[in-house]
Amino acid sequence: MQALGRHLLLELFDCDAEALNSLEVVKTSMVEAAKRAQATIVDVIFHEFNPFGISGVVVIAESHLAIHTWPEYRYAAVDVFSCGDVLQPQAAADHLMEQLGAARASGVELQRGIFVNSPMAMPHKPMAVRG
Amino acid sequence: MQALGRHLLLELFDCDAEALNSLEVVKTSMVEAAKRAQATIVDVIFHEFNPFGISGVVVIAESHLAIHTWPEYRYAAVDVFSCGDVLQPQAAADHLMEQLGAARASGVELQRGIFVNSPMAMPHKPMAVRG
Repeated sequence: MQALGRHLLLELFDCDAEALNSLEVVKTSMVEAAKRAQATIVDVIFHEFNPFGISGVVVIAESHLAIHTWPEYRYAAVDVFSCGDVLQPQAAADHLMEQLGAARASGVELQRGIFVNSPMAMPHKPMAVRG
Repeated sequence: MQALGRHLLLELFDCDAEALNSLEVVKTSMVEAAKRAQATIVDVIFHEFNPFGISGVVVIAESHLAIHTWPEYRYAAVDVFSCGDVLQPQAAADHLMEQLGAARASGVELQRGIFVNSPMAMPHKPMAVRG
């Protein structure tokens, strides 16, 4: 069965609470994670919430990475959505675990856009950004 | 079992290919979907890919909505990630199905950030944006 996208849902537990509450740390870690996964970064958008937590998305030519942090629970939810065979979600996961000090992690990888009876090879999303 | 986040993964099939290839249609549909879900919109970011497809994220105070479209397959992958009890992902899903002309759809809702043994009530993410 072939799919258009791969979607890693990563749960990071027992992280460094200070790291999870720092916009700079979270943003820098996510951008570097995207680079290590071999992603082509298109846009980066991060916000800090009051009193706790960071939300951010790295839009990549191959789809996106997203994070939401709960410093008060030392927990972060990370998504790595990709299409094509180039991206290495594991490299992104490894970097984030290290930078955010995650003592425990769990993950699930899902396939998105499965066409059960498709006779065609599934091309990956074109890489060029028009606008 | 209580969780910090709810994550709806929505698969839209047999959509209107023209709608899926229009940055304006996809963006407008996603922003309105976020509003109908009762989300507080923080940021909106959409890109058009060459030759096909739109990727976009609506960052909301309650987490995010994301979409990736494959007009050539008449398929779109949608994520509605939320925390708290306010958001109504179903309203977002209904609106997107209608606007993108999805003849078929399937969805899975996952819980993110489950703390099995937590004695605490799980608060939702604070709504105010700091920066």
